[in-house]
Amino acid sequence: MAPIGGTPKNKKGILERLDAGEIVIGDGGFVIALEKRGYVKAGPWTPEAALEHPEAVRQLHREFLRAGSNVLQTFTFYASDDKLENRGNYVADKHSGKKVNEAACDIAKEVAQEGDALVAGGVSQTPSYLSSKSEAEVKSIFRKQLEVFTKKNVDFLIAEYFEHVEEAVWAVETLKEAGVPVAATLCIGPEGDMHGILPGECAVKLVNAGASIVGVNCHFDPATSLKTLKLMKEGLAAAKLKAHLMSQPLAFHTPDCGKQGFIDLPEFPFALEPRILSRWDVHKYAREAYNLGVRYIGGCCGFEPYHIRAIAEELAPERGFLPQASEKHGSWGSELSMHTKPWVRARARKEYWENLLPASGRPYCPSLSKPDAWGVTKGDAELIQQKEATSEQQQKELFKRQKFKSSTVA
Amino acid sequence: MAPIGGTPKNKKGILERLDAGEIVIGDGGFVIALEKRGYVKAGPWTPEAALEHPEAVRQLHREFLRAGSNVLQTFTFYASDDKLENRGNYVADKHSGKKVNEAACDIAKEVAQEGDALVAGGVSQTPSYLSSKSEAEVKSIFRKQLEVFTKKNVDFLIAEYFEHVEEAVWAVETLKEAGVPVAATLCIGPEGDMHGILPGECAVKLVNAGASIVGVNCHFDPATSLKTLKLMKEGLAAAKLKAHLMSQPLAFHTPDCGKQGFIDLPEFPFALEPRILSRWDVHKYAREAYNLGVRYIGGCCGFEPYHIRAIAEELAPERGFLPQASEKHGSWGSELSMHTKPWVRARARKEYWENLLPASGRPYCPSLSKPDAWGVTKGDAELIQQKEATSEQQQKELFKRQKFKSSTVA
Amino acid sequence: MAPIGGTPKNKKGILERLDAGEIVIGDGGFVIALEKRGYVKAGPWTPEAALEHPEAVRQLHREFLRAGSNVLQTFTFYASDDKLENRGNYVADKHSGKKVNEAACDIAKEVAQEGDALVAGGVSQTPSYLSSKSEAEVKSIFRKQLEVFTKKNVDFLIAEYFEHVEEAVWAVETLKEAGVPVAATLCIGPEGDMHGILPGECAVKLVNAGASIVGVNCHFDPATSLKTLKLMKEGLAAAKLKAHLMSQPLAFHTPDCGKQGFIDLPEFPFALEPRILSRWDVHKYAREAYNLGVRYIGGCCGFEPYHIRAIAEELAPERGFLPQASEKHGSWGSELSMHTKPWVRARARKEYWENLLPASGRPYCPSLSKPDAWGVTKGDAELIQQKEATSEQQQKELFKRQKFKSSTVA
Amino acid sequence: MAPIGGTPKNKKGILERLDAGEIVIGDGGFVIALEKRGYVKAGPWTPEAALEHPEAVRQLHREFLRAGSNVLQTFTFYASDDKLENRGNYVADKHSGKKVNEAACDIAKEVAQEGDALVAGGVSQTPSYLSSKSEAEVKSIFRKQLEVFTKKNVDFLIAEYFEHVEEAVWAVETLKEAGVPVAATLCIGPEGDMHGILPGECAVKLVNAGASIVGVNCHFDPATSLKTLKLMKEGLAAAKLKAHLMSQPLAFHTPDCGKQGFIDLPEFPFALEPRILSRWDVHKYAREAYNLGVRYIGGCCGFEPYHIRAIAEELAPERGFLPQASEKHGSWGSELSMHTKPWVRARARKEYWENLLPASGRPYCPSLSKPDAWGVTKGDAELIQQKEATSEQQQKELFKRQKFKSSTVA
Repeated sequence: MAPIGGTPKNKKGILERLDAGEIVIGDGGFVIALEKRGYVKAGPWTPEAALEHPEAVRQLHREFLRAGSNVLQTFTFYASDDKLENRGNYVADKHSGKKVNEAACDIAKEVAQEGDALVAGGVSQTPSYLSSKSEAEVKSIFRKQLEVFTKKNVDFLIAEYFEHVEEAVWAVETLKEAGVPVAATLCIGPEGDMHGILPGECAVKLVNAGASIVGVNCHFDPATSLKTLKLMKEGLAAAKLKAHLMSQPLAFHTPDCGKQGFIDLPEFPFALEPRILSRWDVHKYAREAYNLGVRYIGGCCGFEPYHIRAIAEELAPERGFLPQASEKHGSWGSELSMHTKPWVRARARKEYWENLLPASGRPYCPSLSKPDAWGVTKGDAELIQQKEATSEQQQKELFKRQKFKSSTVA
Repeated sequence: MAPIGGTPKNKKGILERLDAGEIVIGDGGFVIALEKRGYVKAGPWTPEAALEHPEAVRQLHREFLRAGSNVLQTFTFYASDDKLENRGNYVADKHSGKKVNEAACDIAKEVAQEGDALVAGGVSQTPSYLSSKSEAEVKSIFRKQLEVFTKKNVDFLIAEYFEHVEEAVWAVETLKEAGVPVAATLCIGPEGDMHGILPGECAVKLVNAGASIVGVNCHFDPATSLKTLKLMKEGLAAAKLKAHLMSQPLAFHTPDCGKQGFIDLPEFPFALEPRILSRWDVHKYAREAYNLGVRYIGGCCGFEPYHIRAIAEELAPERGFLPQASEKHGSWGSELSMHTKPWVRARARKEYWENLLPASGRPYCPSLSKPDAWGVTKGDAELIQQKEATSEQQQKELFKRQKFKSSTVA
Repeated sequence: MAPIGGTPKNKKGILERLDAGEIVIGDGGFVIALEKRGYVKAGPWTPEAALEHPEAVRQLHREFLRAGSNVLQTFTFYASDDKLENRGNYVADKHSGKKVNEAACDIAKEVAQEGDALVAGGVSQTPSYLSSKSEAEVKSIFRKQLEVFTKKNVDFLIAEYFEHVEEAVWAVETLKEAGVPVAATLCIGPEGDMHGILPGECAVKLVNAGASIVGVNCHFDPATSLKTLKLMKEGLAAAKLKAHLMSQPLAFHTPDCGKQGFIDLPEFPFALEPRILSRWDVHKYAREAYNLGVRYIGGCCGFEPYHIRAIAEELAPERGFLPQASEKHGSWGSELSMHTKPWVRARARKEYWENLLPASGRPYCPSLSKPDAWGVTKGDAELIQQKEATSEQQQKELFKRQKFKSSTVA
Repeated sequence: MAPIGGTPKNKKGILERLDAGEIVIGDGGFVIALEKRGYVKAGPWTPEAALEHPEAVRQLHREFLRAGSNVLQTFTFYASDDKLENRGNYVADKHSGKKVNEAACDIAKEVAQEGDALVAGGVSQTPSYLSSKSEAEVKSIFRKQLEVFTKKNVDFLIAEYFEHVEEAVWAVETLKEAGVPVAATLCIGPEGDMHGILPGECAVKLVNAGASIVGVNCHFDPATSLKTLKLMKEGLAAAKLKAHLMSQPLAFHTPDCGKQGFIDLPEFPFALEPRILSRWDVHKYAREAYNLGVRYIGGCCGFEPYHIRAIAEELAPERGFLPQASEKHGSWGSELSMHTKPWVRARARKEYWENLLPASGRPYCPSLSKPDAWGVTKGDAELIQQKEATSEQQQKELFKRQKFKSSTVA
């Protein structure tokens, strides 16, 4: 194996890399990781930490870079003005969306210079769309973020986490105005988007709207996401369209998900721990994504730096080098040969970890859950958002709709 | 609830706090957290990151502080000279143990000034002891670290992660030379230490050696650790000794552990994910520790900042204030009332999370494992350590001893 | 609820009952039940007990009759001459198929007179078909059994347990020669038969061949079987064909089955215990089958008398009476009000049993398995049968192909 | 292996056999098996089927005999007069206890003549004891059953299923009046009887009262039962007493049971299916019981004929012969070499079945349950029995006390 990492060279653009057949490793999920570190609030999931705690955001970027990420996404998820003021959120008022987006760009660009990574500005789905606002209104929301990305001169753009391909197309069309490459990922599974449009057709729509890279992110585990990507690939082939494929799944096992993905699972977002992928699960994912022809391979919610490192280590034979962070990690657990206890040293090999079926330590819990499946989606009155905080009365009505099955006497 | 956090005051010492009946919240596990972030190598588990990547160590300290930790332990776990050169480790040679310990003290002290936290210097079990070196030799190992702690003027000292109470007693006796309070925790379960000495007797020995605070850390989950602490408490009561109790368990469910703790589980250390505690598991732990009379309540391996925050939130009614990081976390998930989806807003309540039995998403995996149970402990030839890296031949012999049970056709 | 059971009346034929909209309750699985009782050999699964131990067969018939069965199937499963001499089976030689079939008819008819049940003669798939023998050869095999059924004057005929619809069609065509109603069930799932023919088309073929009643039996659990039946129903509707629907699924949970059904699961046939349906699972099945429009509702392997009773109890409101065996069973556990312990009496209600998620008591086992999926089916050389016992050498070659995944250190 | 079974010889008595070091195989559980077959009512669990449906009782005895049982216990469990009229039971009034006991003896004796089996008359715990009646009253209850056993000339007597050793001692003292050997088994676990008397002391009391054979039956799985037996054995050794050991555990996995045994598990009695032992679990049990020195090895609730056969097959090398029913069962699944499908033939070996960890097929269910643990035992007002059926009002009060934990949204 070649020397760890490599000197930052004159950076090649995202399409130059992909067109040349290079593997591009994405980064992991910011909102979940920073929620655990104490800087992001679950519920709103907005990225004001870029402004309020830049050192925390900077450190996470750096860890992903060390782990092997070739792209640093600006921490601008849900940084649209309508989201920053939704249901009582204080950020729009106190800071403004513009400042949050600017701060996020500055941090990503600063860290990117520490290695060979590109900076991608990102937009995601909006409350305005869920509330059935017009195309013009939704596009104007995206355009505000785009203005910052343009001023800050990011390397390329990503439209990610869209449940409805219609809104994603609007996002791609807006982002294309900037003249840099655009990638687009939907948070959908094999059943397609929330309006029932199948993955193959979704991919075609995105490419036709101008996306050079298409794929999926979030909402489903690697296995499910790769099924969706396979359908997208087949859809593009049938339409004789070309595009690079991109995969940024969850680092949570979700075989029990329905169409709505992991937010529908009863464990979302505060009891997902037993579902977290091990690094070996990620090895398997990276190999399967590569075999499917995906070349932009990263992660989303749940992906921590060590998960990204696992992608880089699995694909090191193809790439010819290991990431910086592998200076503290042996291939397939080989560093355990340095452990003081002989039975732990006996675990220093691929055969051991590859075949292990890890226990949950939770014998009173099931292995699968039934999703909520309320069947609410865009167009439904229940999805109209509001600027005011959700009222107590509104909450009470929601509580009434929850139903449980008993598993064991307490 | 009172305002978040509170102005740093004239800091009170650890015994002043505990004697006054205050709850002291410890911090979480550094080696596991920093391994995932890319700065610590599993196997050796040594803390050279304090020297090599101070920003990463600083950030983790800061997150624990924000989460509510009243004590920042110097990142000096396994920073004894014999460990830093064990089985091929380069740190002793390249850096020296002294420098690692100094750097760790500097970082902890710097961050501690950002809040109301004390700094504790820490020592842990040594390869010398496992290799059956003499009391004098082992104590001289501890004394080298102690010299740094004294020079750096830490607030108090912790002897932690000892499998044999004999070595812990030697550590306490050495640390007592410094004239500051000493805490001591063993990584044992209800069956006692590796020589079969029961928890109650262990506690008595530690207090008699000079420890003001005694308890357990690492190796077992909260439920098991509290059982051990209860036995320690009873042992002290029977001996009419007084000491404060301290609890820093794993953030992994380990109901299937034997005497040797979680390093004996087949999942250690790279497939423990399904066992990770949720924040609600930590709420339960904090309450039960408090009810048992434990007042120094923290965590060890697996405890991330959000787990420490959960201790602080559960005990906020008793303490009268919330930690800084609660500015991004509602009590029992209340912040979910700001989510865009109604069925997620329906989860914004204690009743929901307290009763949920989370699924693993891994239906092909069991819920419990059988520990390795090789039965090797101090005094056995197999535990003699060596400076050279483990050889390939040595590894092969270990591989032969592993046995598996089949669960499912691949 | 009306009086238990009812006087045997002038028996109505199977089509009279179904045409009148009556619910017909089938019986359960003989080979698995009698294997456990000590009268059937797994592997060959042939019914020589009818001749060798008539009292055991008689008793099982009687139990199903008491439990509510309206049909007693002759115990002639796999009683074809080619099966009775396959791979070293002694039955053809020692007894002859004719005698086995005759004895089975005699017993079923004797017991049927104890209540209001019809007797159905049954044939099932043959080694000859698996070995690619001709249509004429296979039909002559069926015809031998049919001669006995005709002589013994059974009420109607069932062609059951066919993996290939082609062979089932041959069976139906042969059975139609007798001039009594013919039912036909395939042991297929929603993916269709072993040649890939989908359930809807299979149903059409069977009806066109002359079957008045079509459906599925064996190989899959109730939930999966009802999915298959739904597809059959839709296929018939699309083809504008009319037939009664019949469902006789396994009493084992098999959500992890592939196309080949439960014989492909690693637990088949000697470790299926944790998958056995509770009576409450059967209540759910009976209701869902009824709601789908199925009116011939019974069971197959794993169905014990108490499972059949559960069908009869669930559908008692529609039928207006309870089976004889309900004299020893309260509705939804009401008889527990007679238990000596108060906490068991507290379980005497529907709400309790309907919502309970029963534990396996096996924390070291997974909840799902991966099927073997060797992909061998009719036409493959490996399916050619032989009269000689399988040789040791043949066995060794098979052992080599098994692969396992490790779950836990033994 | 010697020829199957063996000619019935001049039968040796139970103590002759055990004193000679022979293995004596018990039979399985009647009430649970006959409940599933439709002849016993759960709740009361009384054996009126001996009178009402003798053919069903006879057939079950015969199956156990074929499976290898050397003892046929009369089906007189709970056949005491106070139980046959408890909480609305009609049996005492309609039939009388005497007739039930007589019928049970007649059937057992008839079947025993078909092989080399002894007949044992059995008594079990009484409602009178639970209701705190006097020693004289309780003994007179036992004496009524004993009169029938004496008249019917059974080979020996068993006092079984006692939760309180005090009542078991009264039973032994009463049974000793008949002058035949007496065996006594408690339904207790390692924690001891319901009054907290430990297993070792219980065994001593029973032997001192006159029992020649002591042990455990029912309430716990084999692993737990053997732990209890080990404690009994140690207690007897410490007291320098000699007695044969007897083991008749459940055929359900119950690692999660507390002191009260399986009736405390939420699944009792109608959702125990996922806990049922496979035949391979029984092989392991038989070997471990033998290794512990137990020589009277049988089963209780859940033990079906094939489970008893597994005991006989596991211990065939020691005994030198196989049971009759092994004519339909190969050792360790060898008969699967006759299966038509190659991947099933590949399972025809010990290595396969011994190592398999069977899946439950129930991914929405946990692997362990929490027992009810109401903590009610003899002496509590709540255990006073009544002749009248439990009233609706009494039931309602019990329902209120049940508590559940939610596992998954329905």
